[in-house]
Amino acid sequence: MAEFSRASLEELLKKRFFFAPSFSAYGGVAGLYDYGPPGCALQANILDSWRKHFVLEEDMLEVDCSIMTPHDVLKTSGHVDKFADWMVKDSQSGEIFRADHLIEGVLETRLDGDKKARSTATLPATAGKSNTKKKKGKAVPVQLDSATKAEYEEILAKIDNYTGPELGEIIKKHNIKNPETDGDLTDPIEFNLMFESSIGPTGYLKGYLRPETAQGQFLNFKKLLEFNNDKMPFASASIGRSFRNEISPRSGLLRVREFVMAEIEHFVDPLNKDHPRFDEVKDIKLRLLDRSIQSEGKTEPKELTIGKAVEEKIVDNQTLAYFLARIQLFLTKLGINPQRLRFRQHMSNEMAHYACDCWDAEIQSSYGWIECVGCADRSAYDLTVHSNRTGEKLVVRESLSEPIIYEKTVLDINKKIFGPRFRQNAKTLETYLLGLSEAELDKLKGDIKSNGGKTTVNLPNGDSYEVGSDFLTIERQTFTEHVREYTPNVIEPSFGIGRILYSLIEHVHWTREGDEQRAVLSFPPRVAPFKCLLVPLSNNASFAPLVRDISSRLRKLSIPIKVDDSSNSIGRRYSRNDELGTPFAITIDFQSTNDGTVTLRERDSTQQIREDVDVILDVLKELVEANTTWESVMEKYPTFVQQELD
Amino acid sequence: MAEFSRASLEELLKKRFFFAPSFSAYGGVAGLYDYGPPGCALQANILDSWRKHFVLEEDMLEVDCSIMTPHDVLKTSGHVDKFADWMVKDSQSGEIFRADHLIEGVLETRLDGDKKARSTATLPATAGKSNTKKKKGKAVPVQLDSATKAEYEEILAKIDNYTGPELGEIIKKHNIKNPETDGDLTDPIEFNLMFESSIGPTGYLKGYLRPETAQGQFLNFKKLLEFNNDKMPFASASIGRSFRNEISPRSGLLRVREFVMAEIEHFVDPLNKDHPRFDEVKDIKLRLLDRSIQSEGKTEPKELTIGKAVEEKIVDNQTLAYFLARIQLFLTKLGINPQRLRFRQHMSNEMAHYACDCWDAEIQSSYGWIECVGCADRSAYDLTVHSNRTGEKLVVRESLSEPIIYEKTVLDINKKIFGPRFRQNAKTLETYLLGLSEAELDKLKGDIKSNGGKTTVNLPNGDSYEVGSDFLTIERQTFTEHVREYTPNVIEPSFGIGRILYSLIEHVHWTREGDEQRAVLSFPPRVAPFKCLLVPLSNNASFAPLVRDISSRLRKLSIPIKVDDSSNSIGRRYSRNDELGTPFAITIDFQSTNDGTVTLRERDSTQQIREDVDVILDVLKELVEANTTWESVMEKYPTFVQQELD
Repeated sequence: MAEFSRASLEELLKKRFFFAPSFSAYGGVAGLYDYGPPGCALQANILDSWRKHFVLEEDMLEVDCSIMTPHDVLKTSGHVDKFADWMVKDSQSGEIFRADHLIEGVLETRLDGDKKARSTATLPATAGKSNTKKKKGKAVPVQLDSATKAEYEEILAKIDNYTGPELGEIIKKHNIKNPETDGDLTDPIEFNLMFESSIGPTGYLKGYLRPETAQGQFLNFKKLLEFNNDKMPFASASIGRSFRNEISPRSGLLRVREFVMAEIEHFVDPLNKDHPRFDEVKDIKLRLLDRSIQSEGKTEPKELTIGKAVEEKIVDNQTLAYFLARIQLFLTKLGINPQRLRFRQHMSNEMAHYACDCWDAEIQSSYGWIECVGCADRSAYDLTVHSNRTGEKLVVRESLSEPIIYEKTVLDINKKIFGPRFRQNAKTLETYLLGLSEAELDKLKGDIKSNGGKTTVNLPNGDSYEVGSDFLTIERQTFTEHVREYTPNVIEPSFGIGRILYSLIEHVHWTREGDEQRAVLSFPPRVAPFKCLLVPLSNNASFAPLVRDISSRLRKLSIPIKVDDSSNSIGRRYSRNDELGTPFAITIDFQSTNDGTVTLRERDSTQQIREDVDVILDVLKELVEANTTWESVMEKYPTFVQQELD
Repeated sequence: MAEFSRASLEELLKKRFFFAPSFSAYGGVAGLYDYGPPGCALQANILDSWRKHFVLEEDMLEVDCSIMTPHDVLKTSGHVDKFADWMVKDSQSGEIFRADHLIEGVLETRLDGDKKARSTATLPATAGKSNTKKKKGKAVPVQLDSATKAEYEEILAKIDNYTGPELGEIIKKHNIKNPETDGDLTDPIEFNLMFESSIGPTGYLKGYLRPETAQGQFLNFKKLLEFNNDKMPFASASIGRSFRNEISPRSGLLRVREFVMAEIEHFVDPLNKDHPRFDEVKDIKLRLLDRSIQSEGKTEPKELTIGKAVEEKIVDNQTLAYFLARIQLFLTKLGINPQRLRFRQHMSNEMAHYACDCWDAEIQSSYGWIECVGCADRSAYDLTVHSNRTGEKLVVRESLSEPIIYEKTVLDINKKIFGPRFRQNAKTLETYLLGLSEAELDKLKGDIKSNGGKTTVNLPNGDSYEVGSDFLTIERQTFTEHVREYTPNVIEPSFGIGRILYSLIEHVHWTREGDEQRAVLSFPPRVAPFKCLLVPLSNNASFAPLVRDISSRLRKLSIPIKVDDSSNSIGRRYSRNDELGTPFAITIDFQSTNDGTVTLRERDSTQQIREDVDVILDVLKELVEANTTWESVMEKYPTFVQQELD
């Protein structure tokens, strides 16, 4: 198979209009993309699979919340203060860069230059003359001393974890400039990644476009719990657009300003994070890159069953682990290559401000290992901050089947005596006494008893008062609680649909042996944008009735098709649909108009069968619904041999 | 049946979490709503039906474009200048109103007061004492003279059509004030309805949240035409959020700041707006409220077939008419009552700035007749303005099977003689001569001939020149054109999904005879949020395995269910799911655990059958997929009689 070329894939995606930069006639806007018909259908199929795999399978409560979010909500969630990246500006040109990306780019270029210099150094000829300064960000051969090289490598390994001032120091220390102009850079300043707007005509109500769908789900927690008959645990889910005003987006669909997310918020008892269906997944093997591996500077994941991972405390709890396994099942069902999928645990300093543990499903593509699904344990962070801010109780009240009975030392003050005796000091003393711990109360009781009914207490402010058993009662009391109240923890699997979509395209892309021009996208039928190509042999009018009839029957079966009755050769039309990833093709030829048979072609093997159209439609339906495979079909029906003509 | 009460429906929708104001814990934001699980599923089912009815059925090219749109695009489309409403401000309190809505509210209140005054005037007792001034916007009985009454009614009839200054005059003339405070109002000023933001960190790239999905489709026209093998006509389609920063939203889901739209842009040859499938719909009857009916001040639509409507030129062309019929089929399939649906033609002064003809599908609800689908002929407006602005050619080039051959009188100037002879006047004279029509050229030729080879021409600026056959040739020439180039027209059916969703809920809402507390939402199975309720008779543990087994089988059939194993009575659980509009219920009782039979209950009739679970699942699948009806099921299986216990 030919080596992967991102340039030819990009050319294909453009030509077949999977997606394209938005507003290109107006010069385009970085980080904004439009999905054409195949991209849009692919996205819809991924979302449909997601809904079936997660929402339907686990009775999740799907909601659809507002994108425009008032300032207060995102101030409380922490996004107004902390959802920011560091940027630097070229002091002369005003050009703006995201600080970490700029450093990364420059240091990688220098390391490339070093590599080149070392390899050309061993070559006699042109070594000397190309040893010039780097220019326009292109790697030029300049050898680095080994200490500098090691330092660069260390910076790159830690690039996600620096604070703004640290990035500023790196820029100064390593003399990093605008790679295009060599212009000096300002100190890094924070840039909040939320798009800001104003709601209504007054201009006083500030709003942001949501950076995640999660907040809407948290704010509806109380209604959702009620909808779920107050049963725990349960999950809500949401599919929708979110927005990040990236400083300088790059990497195609992998870093965009507007994107579709699918997020699950699984609400769970913090004291019991077991999952009722964990047994169903426990034997699934995952490739885990945990903290310990990373802190040793290694990148090779451990492969082990998720059951074992929980046992060994590599993954904290069953619920988190259950979702990691379900995420893997989902991604591989879409067509993601399991060998190019790994789960990486966040280092403690790289987690989002709300997370207490987090694993990323990372998918490998030509851009490297990219986070496509995050699976974070957000603990009780969000429900707590919103509850504190608004006063709305976001808790679960659990009726205890066995009431909790416990004893406690309790202080009782006889106010009738206490008040008049201490007058203006009564409040201070009362506060002090009520703040005593059980142990302190036990000691006070002992002191009073041993001193014959009274003793002196010394307050932290220096005051002393005499207290006694005439107005203080200190006793062990028995309490019975029938209801337990708690704030649930949240396990959040969060899917970046565009990133998954792009990675998937890279994984299913290949070219036919011996002909690099003939590219194929081997989407599984369930996600393929179009399931079947319908091609008449030529644009001869006699084929039209059969094309109409078969397409109408396919529509009734809800099978999305593409009719190609253009004047191109059959071979050319097959190729074009291989590029769209259409798994099957029905071909209508002159024999069809006589005997009602048609051929069915499979994309990857290019094998065909020829049967009566009724049989072919039945077979196609089974194939599209993944009830059978092409291998089984080939066992049952004879291969139809016909040369593919170009 | 009990009279419709919006208050009880709203209570139901809140209780069952169909939708709720967003951010209510933070005080809420007018015009923003979150959909809970039933609302979200209902919306998804409406969109799924839409996709099948339109996109799949007609091979439309679905795209998914960016919401964030740069200023230049919406400046060109006209939205920056014209997409605005008029607002007035209370000069003291600063409160802001949408001018037309305010006038409407105040005048309606005054007319109500007049009605009250007239009816109480005939009553002897309390008439006098309630004849006070209106207060806080509530109708108080003040009789109006008949001229004023007539004037108010005329203003209300035309309220959508006034300009800002006209609204200002009405406010002054009729002494309209802030109904809450009696405060004076400012003159109306324009408020643009687009949410504004800034793209990227520079602050220089202004963007807006799109007010419609259409622009993204227009900007991709060239790529879409190519994707469609350059074939015309074709349609693109898009489902997605759009945003309007309403001045003061009201009317629940009917006027919101953020909403899901589904839009079709059907690109068609301006010289041939026939539709190839028009025959399939021509006999469908529609209720049409055309311009002529409205201009007579009437509101009763004509009911006639769409074929007849095109014949009689009530609807301009087949394509527009085809979509009106298809819209009606779609809406009634969802469950919209056809008697509460009409198509109203826009008056020429109320059309959007881009439209040349427009029909609204209006659905009647307790809010009146509300536009839920617009079907506009946008002509070549959008493609032309974008093409002019960007220089990108947005045209169709049609190869003519028969070339067009025509003759034309053509002028040829011999520049070698012409230039030197007229020097600085050559340009002026040339422009004048090249601007002559064929008839003028013929006359000039005649003049030259009859004057012996020369004549004098008089230019509009007063100059005269002598011209002659020595440097001018005027001849009939034959032209042959093989390609026709044209800018397509666009027919745009545009669906407000939230408005359809809310209207549908009103149409399917009723209460059981004799018990107004027992409300039912009779959604057709295809759109019902949950298709089947699964209820064990009680929460006895012996039912659990069967519940698990049946729910897992229903999931495999992709039938969304709701399990209710709460401790409420069966009757109460049925009622709760009647309110969710769940069409069927499977009940598991003690007999089920013995003989494997379960009952299937139909929501509207409350009738039940009892059969083996395999039979019930088959029947359910057929019912959900609308392959059979409950009536047919009842003919085939005996009714199972069991009292519904509360």
